[in-house]
This record gives sequence, C-alpha cells and structure tokens, in this order.
Amino acid sequence: MKTIKAGLVGITGYAGMELARLLAGHPQMRLVMACSRAESGKRLGQFYPFLEGLPGSDVVISVFEAAEAARCCDVVFLAVPAGTAMEMAHDLLHAGVKVVDFSADFRLRDAATYEEWYKGTHSQRALLSQAVYGLPEIYAAEAARASLIANPGCYPSSVILGLYAALRHRLIQTDGIVVDAKSGTSGAGRKAAVPTLFCEVADTFRAYGLPGHRHTPEIEQELSLLAGQELRVSFNPHLVPMNRGILSTIYTKLADPAMTLDQVHDIFCQTWQDSPWVRVLPKGALPETRFVRGSMFCDIGLVVDSRTGRLTILAAIDNLCRGASGQALANANLMCGLPVQTGLEHLAPLA
Amino acid sequence: MKTIKAGLVGITGYAGMELARLLAGHPQMRLVMACSRAESGKRLGQFYPFLEGLPGSDVVISVFEAAEAARCCDVVFLAVPAGTAMEMAHDLLHAGVKVVDFSADFRLRDAATYEEWYKGTHSQRALLSQAVYGLPEIYAAEAARASLIANPGCYPSSVILGLYAALRHRLIQTDGIVVDAKSGTSGAGRKAAVPTLFCEVADTFRAYGLPGHRHTPEIEQELSLLAGQELRVSFNPHLVPMNRGILSTIYTKLADPAMTLDQVHDIFCQTWQDSPWVRVLPKGALPETRFVRGSMFCDIGLVVDSRTGRLTILAAIDNLCRGASGQALANANLMCGLPVQTGLEHLAPLA
Amino acid sequence: MKTIKAGLVGITGYAGMELARLLAGHPQMRLVMACSRAESGKRLGQFYPFLEGLPGSDVVISVFEAAEAARCCDVVFLAVPAGTAMEMAHDLLHAGVKVVDFSADFRLRDAATYEEWYKGTHSQRALLSQAVYGLPEIYAAEAARASLIANPGCYPSSVILGLYAALRHRLIQTDGIVVDAKSGTSGAGRKAAVPTLFCEVADTFRAYGLPGHRHTPEIEQELSLLAGQELRVSFNPHLVPMNRGILSTIYTKLADPAMTLDQVHDIFCQTWQDSPWVRVLPKGALPETRFVRGSMFCDIGLVVDSRTGRLTILAAIDNLCRGASGQALANANLMCGLPVQTGLEHLAPLA
Amino acid sequence: MKTIKAGLVGITGYAGMELARLLAGHPQMRLVMACSRAESGKRLGQFYPFLEGLPGSDVVISVFEAAEAARCCDVVFLAVPAGTAMEMAHDLLHAGVKVVDFSADFRLRDAATYEEWYKGTHSQRALLSQAVYGLPEIYAAEAARASLIANPGCYPSSVILGLYAALRHRLIQTDGIVVDAKSGTSGAGRKAAVPTLFCEVADTFRAYGLPGHRHTPEIEQELSLLAGQELRVSFNPHLVPMNRGILSTIYTKLADPAMTLDQVHDIFCQTWQDSPWVRVLPKGALPETRFVRGSMFCDIGLVVDSRTGRLTILAAIDNLCRGASGQALANANLMCGLPVQTGLEHLAPLA
Repeated sequence: MKTIKAGLVGITGYAGMELARLLAGHPQMRLVMACSRAESGKRLGQFYPFLEGLPGSDVVISVFEAAEAARCCDVVFLAVPAGTAMEMAHDLLHAGVKVVDFSADFRLRDAATYEEWYKGTHSQRALLSQAVYGLPEIYAAEAARASLIANPGCYPSSVILGLYAALRHRLIQTDGIVVDAKSGTSGAGRKAAVPTLFCEVADTFRAYGLPGHRHTPEIEQELSLLAGQELRVSFNPHLVPMNRGILSTIYTKLADPAMTLDQVHDIFCQTWQDSPWVRVLPKGALPETRFVRGSMFCDIGLVVDSRTGRLTILAAIDNLCRGASGQALANANLMCGLPVQTGLEHLAPLA
Repeated sequence: MKTIKAGLVGITGYAGMELARLLAGHPQMRLVMACSRAESGKRLGQFYPFLEGLPGSDVVISVFEAAEAARCCDVVFLAVPAGTAMEMAHDLLHAGVKVVDFSADFRLRDAATYEEWYKGTHSQRALLSQAVYGLPEIYAAEAARASLIANPGCYPSSVILGLYAALRHRLIQTDGIVVDAKSGTSGAGRKAAVPTLFCEVADTFRAYGLPGHRHTPEIEQELSLLAGQELRVSFNPHLVPMNRGILSTIYTKLADPAMTLDQVHDIFCQTWQDSPWVRVLPKGALPETRFVRGSMFCDIGLVVDSRTGRLTILAAIDNLCRGASGQALANANLMCGLPVQTGLEHLAPLA
Repeated sequence: MKTIKAGLVGITGYAGMELARLLAGHPQMRLVMACSRAESGKRLGQFYPFLEGLPGSDVVISVFEAAEAARCCDVVFLAVPAGTAMEMAHDLLHAGVKVVDFSADFRLRDAATYEEWYKGTHSQRALLSQAVYGLPEIYAAEAARASLIANPGCYPSSVILGLYAALRHRLIQTDGIVVDAKSGTSGAGRKAAVPTLFCEVADTFRAYGLPGHRHTPEIEQELSLLAGQELRVSFNPHLVPMNRGILSTIYTKLADPAMTLDQVHDIFCQTWQDSPWVRVLPKGALPETRFVRGSMFCDIGLVVDSRTGRLTILAAIDNLCRGASGQALANANLMCGLPVQTGLEHLAPLA
Repeated sequence: MKTIKAGLVGITGYAGMELARLLAGHPQMRLVMACSRAESGKRLGQFYPFLEGLPGSDVVISVFEAAEAARCCDVVFLAVPAGTAMEMAHDLLHAGVKVVDFSADFRLRDAATYEEWYKGTHSQRALLSQAVYGLPEIYAAEAARASLIANPGCYPSSVILGLYAALRHRLIQTDGIVVDAKSGTSGAGRKAAVPTLFCEVADTFRAYGLPGHRHTPEIEQELSLLAGQELRVSFNPHLVPMNRGILSTIYTKLADPAMTLDQVHDIFCQTWQDSPWVRVLPKGALPETRFVRGSMFCDIGLVVDSRTGRLTILAAIDNLCRGASGQALANANLMCGLPVQTGLEHLAPLA
C-alpha cells in the first residue's frame, strides 16, 4: 500500500489547521511539506500544539517553492487567498503535481464573472476548463480524472447540496430563492482583526456583506446547471457566535403548492440514498450544526408550509471539514485513486 | 411626585428578572409585590442575587391573590404563561388594578385565532376589545387610556417595527414576505429543560418550531392592519448561542424594483425621526444585537439588492428589554400618566 | 480478528454520547447493546442524530437486564449514577461480563470513606479489592488482568497526571497543595436543571461545591499512594462557559526553592517520555483545553516562580474523552487484550 | 446644578466604550471631548453605534492636545497605554485639569518598582506622591482632595477588596496567599490580535502570563499597606470565554485554624456594612460574575475549610465597570465634589 505524499501551502489559517488534523489520521496520505512565509523554520507541532505527537508534527515549515514541492509531493493543497493561488497552481501543475485549491480562483467557469466579483485579473484562464468543481456527490467521476480541483466554498457546499434534489426533480420555482445562511466565526479566517475579536462576536449576532457576498456567483453557477436554466438567488450570510458550522435556511416556493411533506421527503430520500455523507433527516426533524461537527456530513431538514406554499430546506455542515479541508481531502483521495471516504470514514461527529 | 406601586406575578423567569432590574432604577415606580408559588417566602434579593442592595430587594415573595394585589398595587405585570394570565387579568381589572400582560392572551383581537394557535379556550373574550396592543410607537395614545395592555411578543416587536415604514409607504409587495428571525436563548424561558442546557446550545445553531410558530398570527394581524389588507408571512425562528437579543432579517420584494437605497433610506428616516428608540442606521450599516443590549432601541438596517429586486430589512432588539420587560414598563408609564421613557431614558446599551 | 461486543448502560448523558462516538470509530469493538429506561424502544441513531449512518446507530435502546447483557456482551460500560452502578456491576461480574464503571462506586478503596463522602451505603464492599483504578499510565498492568474497572473521575484524572512526576520525584512539599480546577459544563451532566441552562452559564463564571467536592477523597487517595504518605489537598472546582475541557491549576511549594524550571522540566519530560498521551509542553508554554479536545491527551505546563518558591502545574484534558469515555475505552482495550490505544490512536484533537 | 465637562483620551478600547456608556446616563457630567488619533474626524455615535441618539454621540473625535483639553474640560480620563499616560497627565495637571489615569503609570508608589515591572523609564516621578490610588472604599477622602487619580487595575480591585477585611482584622497568615484569577476577554483589550480572536477563546480555557503578571506589584503594594508588613502573593490570571467579569479565588490560611465560617462572616459583614457596593454574600453562597455585570458591585463569598485550615475568599466584579470605567467615574465624582455614587447609583446589574 503506497503512501501518498501531501503538501500544504498556507498553514496558518483554520483550514490548514483542520487539514493537518485530518491528515494525522489518514491511513494512506502523509503530510510531508507545510509552507508559510511567516512561520518558516518552526516545527509544525510547535506551531500547532494540538498536533504534537501525531503524524505530521515533525514537518518543518518552509517557504513555498514549486520545484521543491514537485520533488517531494504527490498532491499539494493550496490554502491561500484568492488571487494568490492561481499562479501557484499553474506552477505545480506544470511540474506534474496534483493540486487541490481551497480558494475561489478556479471555481467560476467564466473568467469575466470571476473578475467582476473578485475585483482582480485572472491570469490563468487556460486552466479554468480543466479545473473540476470538487463537490464529490456531483463531480466524483470528473475529480477522479482531474489534476486540478477547485474546492467548493463553504456556503456553496451547503446550499448546493441542500437544493440539489429539489432542482433536479423540479419541485420548486427557480425564481425567488432566498438563502439565509449562518456561519461560525472560523469562516472569517484567522487573521488579526478587530471585528472577529472574541468580544466583538460573543453574545451578539449580525449579518455581514449584504448584498453581494462573493459566494453568490458560485452558488448561481452550480444551481443554474442543476436547473438547466439561469437563476438568481438572494444570498445573505450571518455570523454566529460559535466556532464551527454552517446552517443554511433556504426559502423556496413549491412548483406545486399542493405537494406534501411526505412527497418531498420521499424524493429527497431517494435522491440521496447512496450518498452516505448526506443525511436526510426524518420528517419533522431539523438539523443542528453540532451534529455534523468535525465530519463530512451534510444534514438536511425539510419544512413544507401549506399556508404560504413554501418548501424550506435547512442544510447543516461543518464549514471547516465538509466546507473546506475534509472535502479537499475527499477530492485528493479521488485524484489519487483512493476510495473517496479514505481517512474520513471513521470521523464520527464530535457532538 | 407620587410613587406608583407595581406588582409582578411570575418572578422566576427572565422577563421577571429583567423587570426587577428596570424597576430598581425607575425614579417613580416601585416594586411592592412579587409573586411566585414556588419561591414564596423568600426575599427577592435572596432569589435574585444581582438585585441585593437595590430597591425592591426587600420585597418578600408571596402567592398571588387578586384582592391583595388590588390593596397594594397601582399596576400589576403578569409574567405568567399564556392561558394562565387571562383569569388573573380579569380579576385584577375587576378589582380596579391596571394590568400589563406579558403573555399572548390578549394580543390577538380574534378569539378564534387565539384558540386555533394556542390550542386552548379563551375564557375572557369580553376583555379582548379593551386590551391595547402595547407597541408604543404605534399605540401610545390608546395605551395611555387603557387599563389592560397586551404586551407584544419579542419577535413581533422586531418584525412590526422593521416593516412599519415599508408597509405604511407601500414600498414593498405584500405577498411573499419571509422573516428569518434569530433569538438569544433567554427567549426560550427559564424552565429546566434539556434542549436549553448550555451544552445543547453553545457552539451550535438550529432553527426551531418550523412551520407554525405562535408569533405568526400576531405578526400577521399587525402587518395586515398596517398594509390595509390581509397578508401572510413565512416566519422562521432560530436559536442563537447568546443570552439576549433578536435579529430579524426580513426579505421583501420592492413594489418598484427600480427604487434605490437612497430613496428607501430617506423614507425610513422620515418615518422614525420623532421616535428616539427606533434608530435607522446609516446606509451601508447593519445592526447588531449587542448595540441594543439592555435597552429599548430597535436598530434598523436596510439593504436594496437590484439584482433580485429585493429590499431586505434587518431589525435588532433586546428580546428581554424592548421585547418584554422594558416595553411593559413603557406601557405602564403611559397608563399611569408618566412620560413613556421614564426610567428607560438613561438606559445606555451595555455593548 | 475477533470483534468485541460492548454494552452501554445509561446512554442519555454526555459520557454515553461520547462513548457512542468513540465506538463508532473503533476497529475491533462494536456497540451491541444500549440501555436506558426512559428512551427504551428508540433506535440509537434516532436518539443521537450525530450517530445516524455510523456503526451502532441501529442498536435499539433497551431496559437493562444483567442476564441479557451477559448473553450478548463481552464488556459493559456503566454510565449510571454513583449508588446505582454497584449492584449492576455485581450482577454483571457474576454473569461473567467484564465491567467498566464510570461512577465513583469502586474508586475509593475504603468503603467508609465512600460512605462518608457519597452519603450512602456501599452494598458491594467485597468487590472493592478486585476493582482497578483505571488510569492507564499508572495501572495498565493491573487493568489488563481485571474484570472490574473503576474509571477515574474527570478532575482526578487531570490532577493525578499533573502531580505524578512531582510527587514521585519528591520535587514538592506534600502539604499545602491547592487545586483550582475549571471544567466545561458537560461535566455537570445532561439532566434538566436551571443552573446549567445556557443563560445561567454563558457569559458568567463561578465556583461551585466549595468546600468538599466529592472528587477530593479520590484525589487524596491516589496522591497519598504516590507520595507514600497521607496528604490532603484543597480542591476547588469552577464552571467554565464552554462545553468540554478541564484545566487544573495546581499550586505547590518546591521542596527545594532553588530548583529551576530547567530541572523540573527535565524530570517531567523523562517521567513521561514513554507515555504518548501525556505531553509535557515546552518551557514557557501553557496548556489550553482546545488543544486536547476530543482526545486522550493530557497536556502539562510548568511554572516555577522563584519569588514565592512555588511550582505551579497546569494540566489540561478533555473531560468527556480522557476524563470519562475515552479512558473507559482504553481500559476496556486493556481488559480485552487489545493494545491500550486501539480506536483512540488516530484521534487528533478537534482544535 | 453645574454640569461638569469631561474629556476622554483613548476611545477605541473597551474601557473607553464603557465610560461613554456611563457618561451617557450621568446626570451632572457630560462628555465634551473624545480623542483618538486613528479615528479623528468621526462623530462618536458613528464610531460607537450603541451610543447613537444618547448624550455624547455628537462629539467629534479629535487628536489630543493638552491646551485644547484644558480649554474645554474640567476633568480628563486617560484610557491610553502605560508609558503614554504619564506625559499627558503632566501636561493636563500643569494646565489645571483634573486627571483620572486608567493606566499603571501612577499606581506604584515606588518608581523603581514601576520600572522593573513595566520595563520603561518613569519620566514623571515628581507626580507619584500626589497621585491617589483610586479605590473609593479605602481612599475616598484622599481622592476628594486629589488632582490626579491612579485608577486601580481590574484584577487588583477584586483582590484588594476581597482581602481587605481579612488582612485588617488579621484573620489570615500573610505568607502563602495564592490568587487564582479569571477574567473575561475584554480585559485583553480591543486591539487586533490572533490570540483574542473569537475562535481562539471560545470553547477553550487557559492561563496566561505566568509567572509575573504586571498587576502583582500593585496587589502586593496595597496588601502590604493593609497588613502593615511586606507580603508577597502568587498571582495567576486565566482567560475565560466570556466578555466581562473577573472572579478572583483567593486561597489563604487562617491565622487561627479553629475559626469558624460564622466568625469570619460576621467580621466581613461588619467591615463592609456601610459600603453599598461591596456585598458580602450569605454564608454558603458563592459569587458569579453575571450578578455584577455592568455595575460597581463587588460580591464576596467566603469558604472555610476546616480539613485544610483555609479561608478561601471569592470576589467578583465587572472588569470594565468596577475594574475600570465605573471606578474612574466614581473617582471623578469625588474629585469634582459630587457624591461618589452619582450616575452609578441606579446601575442595576444586567444579569
């Protein structure tokens, strides 16, 4: 059984921290390179005290160089900001290394849309067509053949999985979809900033980035593909005084207002019956972020309100695991020929 | 300057605790009676350690009797469950005491609607027509003449204040309104129950009571009156791991999709210019629950999204102060001939 | 590879929840029986939504009977209150089943001490001598030969591991030890009670149970054995507004006030060099509960204050994993002939 | 009734925020100047959304100049870092303005001790003798005659009030005192920094700054004065995942081990009977930070443990109000000839 050698560029953030946790328990993939300009020279276990004594803790943090990465890694995870990842990905691919990019740089198939929402030039347009949008439930086959994965955003992962069955089976109207999304604070990243200090987040609640959060075009791209027509959503993120987790409450109008919860629930259950990570909850049950904490699960709850003709879909994920590093690892598994769930299958949620 | 004597029935909950806090600082109203069957015989300062040494702490908790209440009180606050309050209110009114009822017993003008949503018989239908729905910005004149106040629910207070300007000025379509409301956990009350234990709420997020939360008909009643037509809303509450505060994110469709944020903002500012407790935030700013903590303020933020033709209104209040006890006190002020803001005017938010 | 069949009595609490999580990822032990009088008849996955889809979720909750347990289980975990466990343990042992008891019933070697601190009669005194106090770093050999494990208390686990090296190597005076311990709220259990409601714990801090917390005699028993003389400690627990984790700050006086941090640190490192779960932090570093969350680690930080001649030892554990269910599983591994770390080795902390 | 004009230098921190809250409700003192280099030019209500619509919100933030301050203010509060305050204080005093300094610059009577612990030169040694240590329960008379107040540190306020009665009445041994102090995160200030990000503080617990926190010499100075002899304490701060509040658990040894809780409690009650802000809790009760939130109260709980001959004193305060801005305001009241409790008397804790 061959061991796959993995590199991680951008270790100082929460996604990097989470990937280090997951790789420490992976039976066939090993962290051999960890890059950060600011922390270069430290042992990883020194920087991440939780990792001490576990596989990966002895890696010495280095400054990223594509050639060196190509020398020692089979796959590299890029946990760096949008705009920074695209050049690194190019160089790594050129050197023959597989890449999983956590940023938005390769998520939007249309470079112009990227440039409009991310306010920057896309310097690697030629790579866009070969990047695979790494939501395993939809694109596992493509990911298995890919060299470059655009790892989905955290919010889009919850929204696309939440709406998938409803759009595929034309249960809902495609206009007027509203997403009210709530995320734990790790989603805001790990950089020093007053608005995410403990005392600015604890015991308070707020929306942010309205209107026009950058995950909007990514959500619309994938939902439009599912619906077979262009659609627009109103996407509205909120910040929750908790560490991890996303709950997306998705408001839709039923195509047939007479449709019952029984009918909707049956279709969702059938759609997801072979997807162990998507759990359609029993009728009447609503998801909670704690029940997916630290795992790859996406829990889906369904509400049919006959008074208003609405189907409300609630989808809960762990933003760091399913919404970032766990999903990245699933994609790397696929790219490297391993079963998608390797190293992720015994990950019982830390409720 | 006459001192008004106040009684409080139902002291063990968070609303009772908050009213005791507010009365301790009120210059003209004094707590003289506090009732609870379970805690009868204790000094109030013993039961509420935070109150020790402040006005009201020496009141000895007693079992409620209407005749005794009439003997010693000018006004009685009923912080007891729906269904329990109606008889107490009847007896107190009959004995000549003014009543502020925290429960839903007198909020719905139509007894049949009450009985449908609250699953119980309304035994005091004759009182419904004399009860005033105590939202001071709308019903101050009526409250000043009333003997019985139906103190508004916490969620409805935020939603009605949030939508008031938009409905009065016909800025929005009346169908398709969706309210995604988030409340601190004090809204769930202070009774021993597993779902509100610390470990069941901290570091998690969930919706609850979908569809069909009991505040729905109260919201619809008041919004329909404002709109001049029957309307229905989809009302969806969520539980936030924080103590206090409600943020209601209210999704509407603009009547005129070309309307700008400047125009909407101007109308909101004009509408509320003489209401010191309603603060329309500057364009681009969004409200946070901490900035209203412990106060009567309702902070309103406005978002116009031309991509989807939507006006999104965000309204933040303190669920215990504006959403319960502070508003009750404002109503008692009005009933007793005091300026509405007495004892509430120097209440700077504890940010 | 034989699969070991495990039963769990008392599933409704946090320790039961944690054991279910850990067993779901154990390669050689399987949950086959789960008992609770109150929840009897439900599938375990229905009661614990986080477990759905994982091994163990299909077990149907039943009412405990020793004979039935003996029929289907190799080992039974008793997560029931002190006083209740002793009879169950007797019956199970009599029927030939191995027992790991989470309660205090078999922790104190002296029945009189038990009866003094736990205010009840000990009906199974004969079993006390065969019970092994299950702290694997000290009693692994005894545990491997045992049929009955007294699983250590959460606080004692942190204090005994924290002080072990100092007492064994006579670095400190044995009188005047003060333990200021802080625990997450899961330590208070999962029963409906006002003092552990979210709003009674969040954004506040308090001590509880002073003086005379029941973990005191357990701590003193084991420390006295280590010191080779009777000693008394002042043990003082506090409640932290967090879910999981214990930090014990242990104040001692150096036997030789001239001893340096270097010397103390060396001795601690040597003592624990072969114990992968005990991590002595680098000099100057202090432990945090998040870095052990969900794991078996005990992180130890050392402070020498020459101004006051004190050695302060800080020990952090996860109260539910190391302090209860993970340690129970380690003990079950030992009793069943598995390596102690089976099913626990890939448990990277969820930082 | 003359209105006193107050200035505040350093508005961006939590102490500045708290002082603005308190001044908004003060009947005789008005904020007329607010200084911050970084935020200069903004209205205060724009910078502090919670203040909008309240007294003080219309002040435009300016850059500090002593001459301008002298022109418009009777008293100036300096909420700036240690080392920065001393020159400002000098210039203000020279210009005839009263000063309340929140920093440590004038707390230590001995300049050499300051320079040792604060690693900087004291440029205003001549002012040390005229500065009054502003703990009103001890130094109210001196404060009333002072022009310069050294406002006490948050931790020292809790420790000195906690130990006052025990030292004055020689109830305890003066050696071996250990303080295990726990503070909410606002105590760490409001500057952008990774260690106080929400995700680095929530759901975790840690000690910090051991050994040698800078509040140690301040505590020792005042306790030595009370005891009439030099004494040393072991002072050990911890960070709590909450916003506000300090609980200091103070471990002492009884001078007479036979002394009872009744005796100790009587002496504490007598000592504090005329101090409305110090509340000695009933025997058996322990303080909680929430019961003093937003107020000037110091709640004291007493534990006598005859097994170990110890008196443990627990003292709870609000670190921002009693531990900083409320106490500063009390001192300003005294300096300006107002009753000490003006503007603070109706401050019922926001439990």
